[in-house]
Order: sequence, then structure tokens, then C-alpha cells
Amino acid sequence: MLTMFMVVVRCCSSLSMETIVSLCRKRGFIYGSSEIYNGFNGFYDYGPLGAELKKNIKNEWWVEFVQRSDDVFGLDSSIIGSPLIWKASGHVGGFSDPMVDDKKTKRRYRADQLFYKKVGDAYVTVHEAEKTEECACLVDAPPDVFAQLPPPDDPRRPGDLTEPRDFNLMFETNVGATDASTAYLRPETAQGIFVNYKNVLSSSRLRLPGGIAQIGKAFRNEITPRNFIFRSREFEQMEIEYFIKEDDWEPRHAEWITRCKTWLLKIGLKDELLGYDVHRDNLAHYARACTDITFKFPFGEQELQGIAARGNYDLTQHQSASGKSLEFYDEVAKEKLIPHVIEPSIGVDRLFLALLCSAYEEDGDRVVLKLSPLVAPVKCAVFPLVKKEPVLTLARRLYEDLREEFACDFDVSGAIGRRYRRQDEIGTPFCVTVDFDTLDDNSGFP
Amino acid sequence: MLTMFMVVVRCCSSLSMETIVSLCRKRGFIYGSSEIYNGFNGFYDYGPLGAELKKNIKNEWWVEFVQRSDDVFGLDSSIIGSPLIWKASGHVGGFSDPMVDDKKTKRRYRADQLFYKKVGDAYVTVHEAEKTEECACLVDAPPDVFAQLPPPDDPRRPGDLTEPRDFNLMFETNVGATDASTAYLRPETAQGIFVNYKNVLSSSRLRLPGGIAQIGKAFRNEITPRNFIFRSREFEQMEIEYFIKEDDWEPRHAEWITRCKTWLLKIGLKDELLGYDVHRDNLAHYARACTDITFKFPFGEQELQGIAARGNYDLTQHQSASGKSLEFYDEVAKEKLIPHVIEPSIGVDRLFLALLCSAYEEDGDRVVLKLSPLVAPVKCAVFPLVKKEPVLTLARRLYEDLREEFACDFDVSGAIGRRYRRQDEIGTPFCVTVDFDTLDDNSGFP
Repeated sequence: MLTMFMVVVRCCSSLSMETIVSLCRKRGFIYGSSEIYNGFNGFYDYGPLGAELKKNIKNEWWVEFVQRSDDVFGLDSSIIGSPLIWKASGHVGGFSDPMVDDKKTKRRYRADQLFYKKVGDAYVTVHEAEKTEECACLVDAPPDVFAQLPPPDDPRRPGDLTEPRDFNLMFETNVGATDASTAYLRPETAQGIFVNYKNVLSSSRLRLPGGIAQIGKAFRNEITPRNFIFRSREFEQMEIEYFIKEDDWEPRHAEWITRCKTWLLKIGLKDELLGYDVHRDNLAHYARACTDITFKFPFGEQELQGIAARGNYDLTQHQSASGKSLEFYDEVAKEKLIPHVIEPSIGVDRLFLALLCSAYEEDGDRVVLKLSPLVAPVKCAVFPLVKKEPVLTLARRLYEDLREEFACDFDVSGAIGRRYRRQDEIGTPFCVTVDFDTLDDNSGFP
Repeated sequence: MLTMFMVVVRCCSSLSMETIVSLCRKRGFIYGSSEIYNGFNGFYDYGPLGAELKKNIKNEWWVEFVQRSDDVFGLDSSIIGSPLIWKASGHVGGFSDPMVDDKKTKRRYRADQLFYKKVGDAYVTVHEAEKTEECACLVDAPPDVFAQLPPPDDPRRPGDLTEPRDFNLMFETNVGATDASTAYLRPETAQGIFVNYKNVLSSSRLRLPGGIAQIGKAFRNEITPRNFIFRSREFEQMEIEYFIKEDDWEPRHAEWITRCKTWLLKIGLKDELLGYDVHRDNLAHYARACTDITFKFPFGEQELQGIAARGNYDLTQHQSASGKSLEFYDEVAKEKLIPHVIEPSIGVDRLFLALLCSAYEEDGDRVVLKLSPLVAPVKCAVFPLVKKEPVLTLARRLYEDLREEFACDFDVSGAIGRRYRRQDEIGTPFCVTVDFDTLDDNSGFP
């Protein structure tokens, strides 16, 4: 077990994003958006294998948390809705990042992602991933620091900066031909759940405790999209709002952290790459607690899934703004209450990336993606050893039988070793070679 | 058989949209978007049952056309991409509807949806669904027609109209903090396929003939969204671009019409509600042919799925605009060519609506949705006859076993007849009642 562990650590610590991005592109997991038009920053297209893997992730999540749950119900709300939703939720007023400009180069940065420290007598800029306690935010630096920084050849080493100002991350659009009104692309799927709480309550068996789950696209106009699909401008979320009574929040929060972690392990993430980040100083004002499940990505340990105890802030805001009751009537206690929520929230795309990083191993020049059969884009590949009858037809029939049930591949080209390698590289858990012996073994084959 | 046919016709011809909309809302298939904020015109939220039904439709389509196909590969491209895509495709210049305003009421209409005819000496406006050959477009009417029309109490009876002008249906937004550029929410998923043609070609087994399939959201700022989810502003498409050689187009087009129709029947649409509309006068200039599969909705027979032979217009446009080769090298003929395409395109939402309309039947005051088990949101409901042991535990165990495999419901409340009725109304194909006899029958139960 120790050896195994050390091998794993070696693989992951040496894994670079370039390796993953290159594999994704070559094998058709992910392409940059609009590549023939020289790309479009912050957007990605999922190719044939990526579309399958992404679909499998979403499907497994839905099976686990909706289909097999007694008390969680699905929802699929629209990406564009009334702008009043985002006023009430606080996103119109406050969903922004602090932005600064380099006065000389006109480059734009997120003010909270610029750091420097003193080394000897000089100052150097520090990448966010390498920041330590001795680093300070560059925006707050005195002028003499800027004077001593190296010239801005690295785009992360700015010169003189403007004052930070808020940049709202929501994409705006205009809806309607008659009296076009400003609307927003949702920056999270959660609010679609809150505004439908009463609808779902009245048309399903949802009670207290109980939840509403949703998978769908969300959009944020990130100032600096980066780290491939980890922080992109268009992404997909899987969120649950689990409605509870206020005094129930601590055990329910703990329970959801465990359920989420268990599922992440089940679909194949390596335990040793996961961690926790318990928020203390940086809690939203209305939140009781928030624990992130983190993942050790090649660019550092980062949030993978947030599990927040959000109080009843959102329902209260929407009730107040809409004038519609969002209360639950507790038939036992004979009282109305606005439920509190536990919110487990995970991004499909960053989970996709974590799964690839977790599964990636090299054995000499052989690349193996050790994906779980639950999510692997191709479940089984069938190889006829030779392009001759009756082997070819038998293999073909086997392939056609199997693909009735799940995604399969049929490969007749090249040496058998190369075919196994191609499947190893895309994470196919099962391969079957049909040869002349198969005919004799095969009394039961239909 | 004749009786059966007549019952069906009776049900469908008498079915009103109000009935469907009301069932959808009451049972949690579909709610209006942002209802607590008094709605948002043209957008809808799918509730617990709707989310399941929609997911099942998409999954069945993917299984049929991607998983079980030799030559069709999946894609999941971004909703927002480079604006150059939409310039090249012609959408920036030409994706518009003619819009007119009523000068007095300031209401806005689609000019091509306003009709009138002469009845005796007077003129009357005619709804699009009831238009016949004697109707003419109201926009072209001489002034004396307007003078004779009834007062505009019906919103479809406008008075004096402005000249028609083009209204582009694409939603615009701005991307990026630095040099924000205008971008568009895709109005169709097809262009994401065309711009990734070379990517998929180089990272999959795609050859000629062969296709790329995609399911995803698309957005159109309809001037007059209407007929519930039939024409909404946010919708989901399932599209295939099937790449072929030019001289192959006629048999391939015919083949895809058959494949599409066969699948629509397989997932449960009634044959007698389907029809064909072969476009002749209204073909796009670059298209060789287009056949719509139509469905008899309560508001009239309308396009359900379009199967177009689009020539190689799109790939040619993108090759020309991007300067990147989008040619396929035919190794047999030793020549490069820009493939032609057959494009089967269907909207998930209108298929959802067609399935509900097709499945809806009334038997006295009992409502039955005769949904296929392939798409039904709940596959099986389990009822313990009484709330007593050991019946309750046995039923519960059966339910828990079944929901491992598919979406199930467990209902203990009310008389058994009412429980069956509730499941009939949402289209559950199988129900199981566990009673005291079950215990004796049950030697093999684990």
C-alpha cells in the first residue's frame, strides 16, 4: 500500500496542466471554443469523449442524489429569468470582483489576485499559487514597491495601477422586442431553485427536510478566466438546496459533507488528492458555515465542492422582494417557517478536470487514465484480433450487443498492443479481444 | 382498431392547450419562469416530473443516434462563442423576423403572422392557425381594410401599422472586462458542430459519411413567443450534422427522414398525429431540400422536426471566413472535398409538448398519460396496500431495489384507487401494490 501511495503521489505531483490539456485536445475530450476563429477566451467545447464523460458525471450525480433519494426532487429552470431574481438575491448589487488596470499597458487584473513580497532589499511579484503569509496585495503597495518591480514582461507583473473598482460578473442581455428589458444570464443555478420552492412544494412530495436538485449551465464574466476549464466563463453546476429547520443545521451540514465526499470517492477521485477547507474568516454574512472539499490540481489545491449552511437568507430575500409567501407550514408544530438550507454545490467542469487529473498515470511512455467504469466515456472496446472471418463478424456482433447497453468502441486498426494503448489513454475500463479461440470457447454465444 | 382510432382522434381534437398547461403546472412538469415575480415572457422552468421527462427524451435520443451508431459522434460546444461564427453563418446579417408596430397601441407584431380576409362586405382578421388561401397578410392591406376592422380589443387585431423592419433574433451580450466584445447566445446548436468539424475529424473515427450530434440550449429573442413551450425564447435542440458526399444527398436525405420518424414512433408519438411538410417554395437558398415532420398540436399542425439537405453552405462559409481548411480528404478517390450535410434538427421542448399531447387521454374524469416507459418520468410506483407491517417494509424494500435502476415513486397516502389515478395522470407505466398475499407469493423475494 505504501508503494502504491508513493507512485500515486509521484504521478500527481509531476502532472502538468500542459499534459492534461494536450491529451484533452488530441483525444477529443476538450477543444478551445471557436478555434478556427483563433479562439474565444474563457469558453470550451467538449468533443466526443468529453461529451460522454460530462454526461456520465451528470447522470451519476442525478442517480445518486435524485433518483435514489427519498426526499430530493429535480428541477430544470431557465438560464434567463426575471431580473428581479438577481436584484433580490444581491447579485445585481454585489456579485463583483475588484478590478484594476495597469495604467501603462492597459492590462486589466483582479485586484485580489496580485501579490508581492520582499526578497532581500528588492520586491518581487508572487503568483497566487505560491503566496505565503509574508505576501501582501499589490494593490495596497506603496509607490516605491512598484518602482522596484521588474519590467512587466510577465503579464502578472503590472506597473502603476488604478484604484480598484467593482466589476459585476453577470452577463447582461436584452429580452423582448417591445419594451426590451435588461436581463442576466444566471451566474448560479441556485436561485432558480429558491424562486421555485413553493411550486415544487405544491406539486411534489417535498417536505421538511427535503431538497431540490438542479444541473445546468451558469455564466460569469470572469476578469481573468484561467486554469483551463477550472475557471471558465461558461460552466455547468450541480446544486442542491436541502431545506431544513434552523435548529437542524449542524448535523445536516455534517451529513452532507460526508455524502458529497463519499460520492466523489465513488466516482473515482483519489482520497489522497482531496482535502477540506473550513471557512472561518471569509464566510458570507448570512452563512452559518461553509466547508469546501478541495482537490490538489496541478496548479494548486483549490475548491472542488462547497457545502454551505446558508441560513434562510435567499428565501427571505425573495419573499420580501416578491411579496409572495415562501413559508413552509409545519403540520406537527402547527407553525409557519422559512426553511434554512444546506447547499452542496459543485461545478461539472472542475469535477471533470479533477477526474482526469486523478486518473492520469504514466507507465514509461504509456498513458493510462484510470477512470471508474461509472464515468468512463467508453465502457468497453472490442477488438477482432485479425480482419478475417469468422473473427470479424463475431467481434462485430459482440460489439453491437454491448452498445445496446452502453457506449462501446470497435477497433480493427493496427497491432493489438496499440489498440489497448489507445483505450488505456482514454480510460476505457474493459477491452475484449476476439480471436480464433473465442470460437471454440463460445458455445453459449447466440 | 377502428374504434381505437376514433377514440384517439376524439381525445386529440378536443384537447386544449389550457388542459395541458394546467396539468403541467399542477403536477410539476412545467412552471412559468419567475412566477413569484409575475413571470418572464417566453421562458419556462421544468419541475420534478418535467426535468425527468426532458432528461429521458434527451437520453433516448443520444442512445439511439450516438451510442448505437457506428458513425455519429457526440459534441457539447459552448453557448457563447466567437461572434465571427455568426457573421460567417449569416445570422448577424440575416437571422431576423419582420416586425411591425401598431401606431396607436404601440403593440409589436411579427408582420408575417398577421392575416385578414373578406367576409361579405366586411374584413376580419384571421388567426394564423385558421388561415386559408383566401387570406392575405395584413401588413400589405390597403388602408380601407384597416378602417373596417373591428376595434383592437383582441391583441391580434391591430390598427394602423408601421412599415415592417428587420428585428434580429439573436440575444447579444458583452464578454470580457478588458476590451469587451459583443457576443451572441447561439440561436442554434448546429454552428458549434460546423466549426468543430476538423477537431472531431482528427480526434475520432469520424469519416464520410458520418455525423456529429449535439444536444444543448439555444436562444431566440422571439417577437411574440407563444403556444407555451412550442415557441419560447430559451429552448433546447437536438441536432445532427451528417456529412456526406454531394452525389449521395438524395438517398441519405430519405434515409434520415425514415430514421427520425421511426424514432419518434418508438418513443411514443401516435402515428396519426404525425405528418410531413415538404418544403418547395420556401427553401433556404443554399438548401437542396427540406422535409418537416409535423405534429398535430392543439393549436394546429406545426413543424416538429426538420430534416434538411443543406448542401455544403455552412462549411464553405466558415472555411472562407476563417481561412482554415474544412475539407475532408477522400483516401479512395484521392481528392479533397467540402462535405455536404443532412441536418435532422428537433427541439426538445416541442417534442416534450408533442409527447404530452399524444399521450393525453380522458376516461370520464380520469386523466391518463399514455407515455412510453422509455420516457415516462416515473417508471414504477410501489404502493403498500396498508400502512402496516410487514406490508409496509416489504413494499419499501421493493421500492428501494427498483429505484437503484430507474426513477420510482413510493406512495402510502390515500385509497389505492386514488394512488393509481395519481400515477395515471403523470404517465407511470407500471404500478405495484404490495398486500398480504404478496407475502405468500414471495418465496423468491430476497
